[in-house]
Amino acid sequence: MERRLHLGLFLIGTGSHISGWRMPGAVDSFEDLPAILDIAREAERALFDLIFVGDNLNADPGAHPSYCSRLEPLTMLSAVATATSRIGLGATASTTYGDPWTLARAFASLDHISGGRAAWNSVTTANPQAAANFGMVHPDHARRYEMSGEFIEAVRKLWDAWAPGALIRDTASGRYFDAAKIAPIDHEGAFFRVKGPLNISRSPQGRPVILQAGGSEAGQDLAARHADVVFTVTQDKDEARAFYAGLKARLPAHGRGPGDLVVLPGVMPVVAETERQARNKLAALQGFVDEATALGMLSERFNQDMSRFDLDGPIPDLGRNEAYHAFASAMLGKARRENMTLRDLYNLVAAARGHWVLCGSADFVADTLEDWFRSKAADGFNVMPPWFMEGFTDFTRLVVPRLQERGLFRKAYEGRTLRENLGLRPA
Amino acid sequence: MERRLHLGLFLIGTGSHISGWRMPGAVDSFEDLPAILDIAREAERALFDLIFVGDNLNADPGAHPSYCSRLEPLTMLSAVATATSRIGLGATASTTYGDPWTLARAFASLDHISGGRAAWNSVTTANPQAAANFGMVHPDHARRYEMSGEFIEAVRKLWDAWAPGALIRDTASGRYFDAAKIAPIDHEGAFFRVKGPLNISRSPQGRPVILQAGGSEAGQDLAARHADVVFTVTQDKDEARAFYAGLKARLPAHGRGPGDLVVLPGVMPVVAETERQARNKLAALQGFVDEATALGMLSERFNQDMSRFDLDGPIPDLGRNEAYHAFASAMLGKARRENMTLRDLYNLVAAARGHWVLCGSADFVADTLEDWFRSKAADGFNVMPPWFMEGFTDFTRLVVPRLQERGLFRKAYEGRTLRENLGLRPA
Ligand SMILES: Cc1cc2nc3c(=O)[nH]c(=O)nc-3n(C[C@H](O)[C@H](O)[C@H](O)COP(=O)(O)O)c2cc1C
Ligand SMILES: Cc1cc2nc3c(=O)[nH]c(=O)nc-3n(C[C@H](O)[C@H](O)[C@H](O)COP(=O)(O)O)c2cc1C
Repeated sequence: MERRLHLGLFLIGTGSHISGWRMPGAVDSFEDLPAILDIAREAERALFDLIFVGDNLNADPGAHPSYCSRLEPLTMLSAVATATSRIGLGATASTTYGDPWTLARAFASLDHISGGRAAWNSVTTANPQAAANFGMVHPDHARRYEMSGEFIEAVRKLWDAWAPGALIRDTASGRYFDAAKIAPIDHEGAFFRVKGPLNISRSPQGRPVILQAGGSEAGQDLAARHADVVFTVTQDKDEARAFYAGLKARLPAHGRGPGDLVVLPGVMPVVAETERQARNKLAALQGFVDEATALGMLSERFNQDMSRFDLDGPIPDLGRNEAYHAFASAMLGKARRENMTLRDLYNLVAAARGHWVLCGSADFVADTLEDWFRSKAADGFNVMPPWFMEGFTDFTRLVVPRLQERGLFRKAYEGRTLRENLGLRPA
Repeated sequence: MERRLHLGLFLIGTGSHISGWRMPGAVDSFEDLPAILDIAREAERALFDLIFVGDNLNADPGAHPSYCSRLEPLTMLSAVATATSRIGLGATASTTYGDPWTLARAFASLDHISGGRAAWNSVTTANPQAAANFGMVHPDHARRYEMSGEFIEAVRKLWDAWAPGALIRDTASGRYFDAAKIAPIDHEGAFFRVKGPLNISRSPQGRPVILQAGGSEAGQDLAARHADVVFTVTQDKDEARAFYAGLKARLPAHGRGPGDLVVLPGVMPVVAETERQARNKLAALQGFVDEATALGMLSERFNQDMSRFDLDGPIPDLGRNEAYHAFASAMLGKARRENMTLRDLYNLVAAARGHWVLCGSADFVADTLEDWFRSKAADGFNVMPPWFMEGFTDFTRLVVPRLQERGLFRKAYEGRTLRENLGLRPA
């Protein structure tokens, strides 16, 4: 089957650039439902496969300032579901702070509400600050991934425990359901005991789409077993190609083929008709970065106080950072390769928290994305607009049509469900 | 201040009558969002204060058959929020199986999404079958209420921890929030440790409305401390008056007055232009009840196998039933007073799970509701239509206009938020 390029829209705070909300006319709140509905409608007009909403489990003023106040993803996307009809709806939810029954149920509900467009971005919650909101001790990286594996298994069993056709609803006989098609799961593992079944019938997708973004060994193993879509952080095409090939090579061991997993590197596009205009936009964005916020974000990212280092000196030795491993290593790799100062690094973080910033003319951006796609560095992209709406419509207006002209991107949705649009097998 | 009558719509399964879904043209699914949106719009047209969605945490084919498959309330009501603009949106959520941070956050999110219309029906989850879905042992009644009191306190602290005006969003200076207005709560109690704050700013209502329905001593004590609205189960006006007076008398000890708590007895209206027509509707409904389902429901309600008793014999001695105390005692009281057989009792349960069935002409129903309201047996009613839509539109079409003519019920929403429409003090 021909490979098709897929596009996701990453929604977090007021946009991926830390200071994007200060741009003229920018959306300045992540609690503003009408603004969020406008963004979702624009993404659907542009035929994006999905929007996906990042999440954290603590108010974190150290990170991106607009992260500290935000709608909860499942409630947000249920509202978005009624304002859209085709675009996929991905919500982030944690396998460390939550339980499988509640989570499986909520995503099945979103899948029913949206007519088969729900996706779960399964995260282990790297930020240790979350623990105190749940009266827990933050489990370490290895344990979080062990829990996560078992959590996802239980969720999948729950989604599968309702067979198709369990609801009969025969008014004549009074038979409402066929009990033989609704089985408990009786899951008993190291971390979770879940009897089941859910109190919601099999959802339109059967199994909502599973998104994942772990870059570590454990994260990639989990992705190979369970994920339909993987988001990656990368700055470099060769690195991305190696990661892509490595991840796809893990699939056969789990009875899966390369078409069963869609790999989407994150990219923050800063795009305009000409390169000069694009550079000006990026400069305007970076001009809004204030030192305190940027250092706060860097400290959060590296889980240590970064304000004690010289901003214009070289990148200090930070030790191995467990909490944000994938982010940290991608950024540090690039920063060291390019002999950056700490100030350069924080500008990089401010821009897209370590994600790839792709700045240039519409042709250049389209060329680069095409090259990555054809080189098998990517099956598509997780688009992280620096701010809304202009920072996003620049992409939908200038880049999407170019990808369509080149036969890379759809001109109409292929299917009704997200699973269909992603070209995945029915579950 | 003049008392005003309030109306809530109870949404559970396909309607409150166990066999309502078998009526011609009835809604037969509680997973059908378009049908639910229609119901919500009809309730808003009729100027109801709120709709509230019951919930359980297990698939329970023994109870009302359509309970076993249902949308999750918070996702459902977030979708309903975008299709309505004034009606209150109450979701049931448990204090036994869940955590305060997650719950407080989700309801604050619904409050933002709906522009100040969120309400939380706080339940302790009486049904012991829920426990196995969470790998837990079901706590006993007393312990559930202790947990519940602490849970609600933590939730209220979380809602209050964000002061008004914490979000500044000053594009010129780059100040996004005022950290001094966002405090942790550092809650450490017998059951929960919650640091806080939430990652969502103070919501439009400040504090979403709290609904409660516990009838026991512990339940009433909790209501007096925290509830804005109480739902009751009652079959009898004098009983209802005594309960009403008793509950209101508990308020001053907590610095609250009678206007701070709205008491809404549940009523299943079966109404038509004439009494004869109404009786025919009820007979049609009861004609659809099948013995097995009714006995299953009765067994679930009394937490024991009821099929071992003679259906046409007197009500057996069932022992004290802890799990469904309020329901059980209301029903048994009536059944014994009226010398019912077990078959009569199951018809009563089938009709409205023990709630008050009010069957008659529109004038009779309006007169009776007026009488209960003026006698201080009720501040309004929790309307439990036997099925949808006709079983509900009979009420909105025939009864609501009569209540309006008599000056008892609003002709337009008074306010923007649920709290305003309920006549409650700002939080
Ligand atoms: C595009 C992208 C989005 C992410 N979104 C979230 C998120 O919303 N919430 C979260 O807790 N972690 C998020 N993460 C973090 C990952 O879930 C994961 O913790 C991180 O990539 C480190 O993975 P590793 O420990 O396997 O290296 C995201 C990562 C990426 C690449
Ligand atoms: C109108 C009404 C609706 C209720 N809805 C729910 C519900 O959705 N979920 C639930 O677990 N319990 C529900 N209950 C049960 C109550 O929360 C409570 O458990 C029950 O009334 C027994 O209270 P008690 O133990 O204080 O006597 C409801 C009760 C009433 C009266």
